[in-house]
Amino acid sequence: MASQEEQVQGMLQHAEQCSSTHQPLPTLEQLRASLPPGASVVMVVTCCDPRVLPDQFLGGFGMKVSEVRNAGGRASEALRSIICVDHVLGVGAVIVIHHTDCGLTHLRNDFLHKSLTEKAPNNAAEIAKMDFLEILDLKASVIEDMKILKDSPYLKKDLKVYGYVYDIKTGELQDVKE
Amino acid sequence: MASQEEQVQGMLQHAEQCSSTHQPLPTLEQLRASLPPGASVVMVVTCCDPRVLPDQFLGGFGMKVSEVRNAGGRASEALRSIICVDHVLGVGAVIVIHHTDCGLTHLRNDFLHKSLTEKAPNNAAEIAKMDFLEILDLKASVIEDMKILKDSPYLKKDLKVYGYVYDIKTGELQDVKE
Repeated sequence: MASQEEQVQGMLQHAEQCSSTHQPLPTLEQLRASLPPGASVVMVVTCCDPRVLPDQFLGGFGMKVSEVRNAGGRASEALRSIICVDHVLGVGAVIVIHHTDCGLTHLRNDFLHKSLTEKAPNNAAEIAKMDFLEILDLKASVIEDMKILKDSPYLKKDLKVYGYVYDIKTGELQDVKE
Repeated sequence: MASQEEQVQGMLQHAEQCSSTHQPLPTLEQLRASLPPGASVVMVVTCCDPRVLPDQFLGGFGMKVSEVRNAGGRASEALRSIICVDHVLGVGAVIVIHHTDCGLTHLRNDFLHKSLTEKAPNNAAEIAKMDFLEILDLKASVIEDMKILKDSPYLKKDLKVYGYVYDIKTGELQDVKE
């Protein structure tokens, strides 16, 4: 079994091999110019869980999809990224995908506060303020996140927002309606 | 040319096709149990730019890699996710990858504050406090982010932190040393 160091070195070697046949990617300016007039990219907001790979189950993303990944796939944290991408490429639609058996459905703020305070007792005040964006109910978390995006005064008023729960057992995307 | 609505519908249809041959993915508990004793996952922190696809140039991620993506691939924002993954699977190494021609090297906080204030003048005070984590110098941003992770009292003291700049022209990963 390869150690983690060997695993990382293997990944880096793969990157070196890839670069030998690499075709230059378009600049941001070329990418923007390649979108049809008035068009914009789709953003996918999803979890960093190793089991959730939207670029596989949604098809090859190509250059028209920007993917934000964070623990839980939470929109509040993704907002900065969406605003940035909106300013460089334009964002017309966001797809929020949370998933069953997500770590954030197992973790609680209280537990994490306790665990981190044991690790760094001097930072207790900072830790107490941390919000890990725990998920108590998957459908509710998707609805909450869709609402954050739809109501944001910083995004387009006609932004299309889609929300799904990805079932890791069946591979199905369950449509979540507000 | 497909409209954005058609593009999204195409992605969802692809997901439906995928689910018909989907094999149940391991539960988080099974995933944790499948790691060798003492082992943990590698996390990759990178940009949500459509051109940057580490799961391709670093090789198939499999179930041992968790990928966080946000505008710029900034560690300060990724910290919540890394702490969460560390508590459910364990994190032994983090690879930070920023890239040339990143949107965050073109965007400035001042510009975004002005743009958003025009869009939502009533929110001027909130907007003025927003930090979009702009990048003035790519090597410096990687070093800054590696330092955030290495110095974090919330992560393992022996956490391995690697930092690279991905060159979108050559496909090369430029090793960044502190």
